[in-house]
Formats: sequence, C-alpha cells, structure tokens
Amino acid sequence: MFISTLGLAGFNTAEYAKLRLELEVAHAKLVEGDRKSQDNLGWMQPLDPDDEQVGKIIAAAEQIRRDADVLLVIGAGGSYLGARAGIEMLAGRSGTEILFLGHHLCTANLKEVFAKLKGRRVAVNVVSKSGTTLEPAIAFRLARRWMIDQYGVEEATRRIYVTTDPEKGALLAMAKKNGYKSFSIPERVGGRYSVLTVAGLLPMAVHGADIREMLRGAQEAARLYTNPRLEANTCYQYAVYRNFWYRNGKSIELLAGYDTRLRTLSDWWQQLFAESEGKDGKGIFPAVVQLTTDLHSVGQYIQQGPRHLLQTVLWVKQSDLNVTLPEMEDDLDGLGYLTGQDLHEINKRAFLGALTAHTNGGVPNVVLHLPDLTEQTIGHMFYFFMKACAVSSLLLGVNPFDQPGVEAYKRQMFHLLEERRTS
Amino acid sequence: MFISTLGLAGFNTAEYAKLRLELEVAHAKLVEGDRKSQDNLGWMQPLDPDDEQVGKIIAAAEQIRRDADVLLVIGAGGSYLGARAGIEMLAGRSGTEILFLGHHLCTANLKEVFAKLKGRRVAVNVVSKSGTTLEPAIAFRLARRWMIDQYGVEEATRRIYVTTDPEKGALLAMAKKNGYKSFSIPERVGGRYSVLTVAGLLPMAVHGADIREMLRGAQEAARLYTNPRLEANTCYQYAVYRNFWYRNGKSIELLAGYDTRLRTLSDWWQQLFAESEGKDGKGIFPAVVQLTTDLHSVGQYIQQGPRHLLQTVLWVKQSDLNVTLPEMEDDLDGLGYLTGQDLHEINKRAFLGALTAHTNGGVPNVVLHLPDLTEQTIGHMFYFFMKACAVSSLLLGVNPFDQPGVEAYKRQMFHLLEERRTS
Repeated sequence: MFISTLGLAGFNTAEYAKLRLELEVAHAKLVEGDRKSQDNLGWMQPLDPDDEQVGKIIAAAEQIRRDADVLLVIGAGGSYLGARAGIEMLAGRSGTEILFLGHHLCTANLKEVFAKLKGRRVAVNVVSKSGTTLEPAIAFRLARRWMIDQYGVEEATRRIYVTTDPEKGALLAMAKKNGYKSFSIPERVGGRYSVLTVAGLLPMAVHGADIREMLRGAQEAARLYTNPRLEANTCYQYAVYRNFWYRNGKSIELLAGYDTRLRTLSDWWQQLFAESEGKDGKGIFPAVVQLTTDLHSVGQYIQQGPRHLLQTVLWVKQSDLNVTLPEMEDDLDGLGYLTGQDLHEINKRAFLGALTAHTNGGVPNVVLHLPDLTEQTIGHMFYFFMKACAVSSLLLGVNPFDQPGVEAYKRQMFHLLEERRTS
Repeated sequence: MFISTLGLAGFNTAEYAKLRLELEVAHAKLVEGDRKSQDNLGWMQPLDPDDEQVGKIIAAAEQIRRDADVLLVIGAGGSYLGARAGIEMLAGRSGTEILFLGHHLCTANLKEVFAKLKGRRVAVNVVSKSGTTLEPAIAFRLARRWMIDQYGVEEATRRIYVTTDPEKGALLAMAKKNGYKSFSIPERVGGRYSVLTVAGLLPMAVHGADIREMLRGAQEAARLYTNPRLEANTCYQYAVYRNFWYRNGKSIELLAGYDTRLRTLSDWWQQLFAESEGKDGKGIFPAVVQLTTDLHSVGQYIQQGPRHLLQTVLWVKQSDLNVTLPEMEDDLDGLGYLTGQDLHEINKRAFLGALTAHTNGGVPNVVLHLPDLTEQTIGHMFYFFMKACAVSSLLLGVNPFDQPGVEAYKRQMFHLLEERRTS
C-alpha cells in the first residue's frame, strides 16, 4: 500500500527521533510475542490460503449459497464489522444477500430485518466468542424461534452456523447440544482482530468473495510489514505519524473515504482504534467522514475549526466503473467543459483540491493509496490497519488487546436488568 | 422536549453566570433580527400549516405519488440531509420510495442508484439554491439524460420538480427554460436551516409524512423556545450547557441515539453544528454514535479515553413496535430471566446503564427525551436543534449562518478541473 504524507513541517524533531526508538521496542515486542505464540497475537500470521480450514469455510459457504437467498449474520462489534466492511467493499457480487443483526436492541430495525426474510430461503450465522453478549444473544434467540417456526427443528438446525470459541462458552455449549455446525475463532485472536478468521471469512465467502485471494493479500502484507526499517514500512510510518501528531496536540483523526463502498471499512477502523487505544486517559478519537459528501457538512469545521484534527484519506486509484458526464444541448448548468469526462477523474480532482485546502488550513493529511477494491487489496488493507493499530497502541503505551472499559456499562446494565427480574 | 442533564458538578460557577448574561444578548439579537426580518432568520417563523404554499407542496407530493414508484432526490448537504432524516425517522410509511443522489462523486453508488430505477416509474426532485454546486449539478445532468432517454422530453419535463432560489441562479434559469415545475426555498433561509421549507417538506410528503403535523410541532417549538427564561427553555439550556463544557475543556460532542431510525437525523445535526460553529478556530467537534451498537466500538474510548468528550443522548420514550423475547425450552443462552420482556424495555436498561457508567467515567451527559417519533415530535425536534444551534453559535462568538471555509476546497478543486479543460 502506497502512502503519502503532507503537512510534515516540524517532523525532524527530537520527538520524532524518540518515536523511532520506541518503534524499535514495539517491533521487537511483536516479533518476540509472535515467535512465542503469545496470547492475542494470532492475527499476526494470516491463515494459509491452502489450509484445510479455508477449504471447509468455502465448502460451508457454497452450501449456504445453495440453500439460502439470505444469510442472517448475528454479531456485535468485531464479530460483524469486518465481514460487513468486506462485503460492502465487494458490492455487486452475485452471492446470497447478507443481512446483519445482533449489534443493537432497536425494535424498529429488528422488525425491518425480519420482514425482509419473509418468503425467502434463510440461513443463520451467529458469531460470538462467549455467546452471552446481550445483543447477539437476544437476536439469536429471536432468529432460532423464527427458523424453527419456519422450518421445524431439524431443517432449522441444518441452516444454522455457529462461529465461536473452540473450547468454552454458552454458544459452544448450545451448538453441541443442538447439533449446529460450528466453526472456531482461534483462541489467540480477539474480536476486533478477527476479520481474517472464519468470523469474517465465512460471511464474505457467502457473499461471493474469493477469500483465498484475500488471504494472499494479507500474507503479502504480513511479509512487507515485518520490515523493521521505518523508511521501508508504510504500516509503521502510519503508526509513527499519528503518534507524532497526537503528541503534538492532534486529538481527533478523521478517516476520509472518497468511495461510498468504504463506509463500513471506516466503522471497522473506528472500532479497531477506539477500543485498542482509548484507555488510561489516552488515545486519538477516531472519527469517520465520507467525502465529498461531508465537504458539505464537517468540511467547514475541518477547514476553519480548532486545529486539533488530523486526516487520513483512503483513495482508490482505479475505478472499474465507467460513468461519464453526458452531453446536454443546453449548457445551463455550466458543466459543458466537463462533458465526456469520467466521474472518477472529477472525484479525483475534488480529492486533490480538498487535500490541498485542508493541508493549507493546518490539518496534517496522510493518504493511503489503494490500487483497487479487489480481494487482494482488501486483505492487504485489513492487515495493514491491524498491525498499524497494534504498533500505534504500543507507541501510545497502552495494551492494544484489552477493553477493560467495556465492562463498566455492562455491570450497570445487568444490574438494572436483574432488578427487573426480582421486582 | 424534556431534557435532563447529568454530571453537572461545577455548574454554579462564575463561567455559568457569565453564560447567562451572554444568553440574554443572544436571545435579544435573535428576537430583534426576527422582528426586522433579517437575512438568514427566515427559519425562525415556521410555515403556517394552513398556508397556501403548504397546500401546493401536498398537491405536488400527491401527484408524484400517483406518477412514480421512486422519487430521486438530488441535493448536497442541507439540501438533502433534513429530508432524509425525516424520512428515516418515519420509516415504514407507504409512500413512494425515496432515493438520494448528488451528494458525492462516487461512481459505484451512482451506478447502484440508477440500477434501482430500472423498470420503475420515476420522478426527480432536484434541490439546490444555486444550481452550480458540483455534485448535485452532475447528478442532475445524469438524471435528466436518463429521464429523457426513458420518457422523451415532454414526459420527462412533467416528472422533474425543481426546488431552488426564488430569484436567481442556474437551476432557476434551467427550470424556466425547460418548463420544470419549480418551488422556492425562502431567500432568508440557508441550506442547513431549510428542512422545514419545501426543500425538506416535499420529499417527506412524498414519503407519506403528514407535513402539516410536522409544521404544527415546529410552531409549538417556536412558541416554547422564545421564552427568555433559561429555567423554562430547554433549547437554551442545551445551548448554554454545551458552551459551558466547551469552555471547560470538552472539545467533542457525541450525539448518541438508541434507535437506528435516528441515524440520518444525527448526520443532519452534525452538519448543522459543524458548519455553524466550526470557524475562527472554534467549535465543538460534532460526532455521531449509534447505541447500543457503538458500545462495542467507541464505547471503550468513551469510558476510559481522554476526558474531552461530552455526550448528548436521544431517547425515544415510546415504542410503537412490540417485540418480546420468546421462550426457548433450553436456556443455554442464559436469557431465561428476560423471557416475555419487551425489547424496548431492555434497550432502556442498556441506555440507563451506559448513562450511569459514562457519567461516572467523567463524561457529562445530557438526555433529550422524545415522547415518540411522530411528525409532530420530529418537527419540534428540528426546530429545537436549529434554534439551539443559532444560540450556541452566538454564545461561541461566531456567525451561525455563514460557511466561509467551504470555499477553500472549491477554489482548489475548480482550479484543477479548469486545468483539465485547458490541457
């Protein structure tokens, strides 16, 4: 992945030299941890595309594509964002339609999703390490009820796929008791680093993604981004860059995509960085903008608000879709000079124009140039961000792999739910 | 709208007393400006539901509903976010389907939207004050071409509705020359304050919204929120509250909705506040979270990241949709104690639990309690936020109604586009 940085005045400072030294420590820590097969580092070695497990995932996906018009994927946070991101980036594949549930408690959306299932052949894939996270557990109970009412116990069982912990948990117990087909999320991979495991791969394969290609992209990235030399490692550059700016007063990072298919990838990125870094009173706030759309929204703030922002732009170089501006006899809209031009070229001018304007306005920008939105690039990008996030968190001085703050609301919520039980 | 604030320790300070005095000035300025019919204050007096203009909008909407299965609404920023917000909050109405275009330059999305038009009866509503904003101008050219190819010039003309400036601009000229039906956005209303004009009302009416009820809600809000007494004016309370915290180190405001139908309302709110306040190096960064979804994403950061956040929660009290947790013979998911409970009640426990946890974690919270998601409440809420934003911007010491920073990228972009023309 090609990376270019702008607004780097002041980068050759003592702070930067310090960051380089810290990077060496972080790099050594990850290499050593990987060698020792430490907990939480299972994502560092992506699955081999020729692994037997990959074949099993593809076979299950093919079965689902034969059996179902819709696959209902149930999961929260890292258990669905990666799959959804991949599926949205690969929009237009001819696979089974994928619908997502189990990440909220909104009745309106639940009703809407179940209404879409009516009259169609349905399969379910529930993704949860514990099986006791409230939202997916509730959605799965509703889905099981619906499937049993629709198909009877036996056929419903055949259509339910469980992705969960290999050793323990409520969902594993349920799968065993009821005879659901089950897949294991590797023990050494946490939720937000699980997109390239069966958690993300199975739904993406059902959508029609070539997951072997995706894993090839991730493997290539894994090779490239073990290079300890900062100059040769764009992933480390990104991690150093954002920490440099964090230490120099930037507290918000905007991820800006110029392609609407990048929407959920941005949400996945936001979860990855917010949960990995947002602790001990530290962390850049990761926010998402969609451009050019939000040039007419947050754009004013980016240009002239407080200078606490940095911006990371995702630019997809090649467009496989040709839309040109048609000719009109009258030229009352004043667009005549753009007639016959490809819209992607016009989008590119908007991207370059905003980049210059925002940089001049005092917002440091980094551009991640994606060659295209194919499986290989997507796999590469997933890996790029996960490794960058792990390194970045280590530079920040926090644990990239825990989320102790998430327990706080759960305690309060379960306390209130329990109260209702006894009242 | 009922409002409750939490985490107010330290509110009785000199800063707060100062804000009260500044509020009096801001209030007087808006009252005086409204009396003098000043520029940009046209939104302060919502349309009378019995106004002749409202009748015309409803008649046009009825015509579109008879003629079309799909209405393509073309607009950017304030020209589509309000309509889209209203339509999403009123999901499930039986009107004509509304699709949005013209707010970006992404070819993938353009192709997707045009693919959805195939074989269906289509009408177009283009919304733009100038007619020269690049994205909607391009989308409208594509749409005109499509409509003419589909229907021929005469019938295409009958199916195109233009919402634009009453006096000037490229779009007005085009409407006159081609004989498109046209509606006027009042001159004294800027784009991000235009949701309760024809810009927002026509698409919402086509969706099946009772826009007279919406205007009744807005009128009620206009009456309520002219009260100069802070204690009696929740709209002013919200404006004072956020400025108080801004002056006390909070630089990011999260708008958190617990209902998926509030997604675009949040985007509309973000545009309103970002463009109104983000200038002169000032302004709270408005960010959007969807809960409970993002408790599994940004939640960790909210709980334990830097304490520069405040959170505004939208809670819809009444759910008109009953979904209860079904019984299952096995209780392997451990949810047995919630069997038979309404999901909205469980969502409420999550909301209250997160509220306590985040407040305890040092994030000030304010809750805006919406009784329901009916037209009246929605109209009330739109007005609440617009007035709060105007007052809040005045407290911040910036002009709530201009957007000088938006010109910066446009200059750069048009420069690049012009280069192509001459090269």
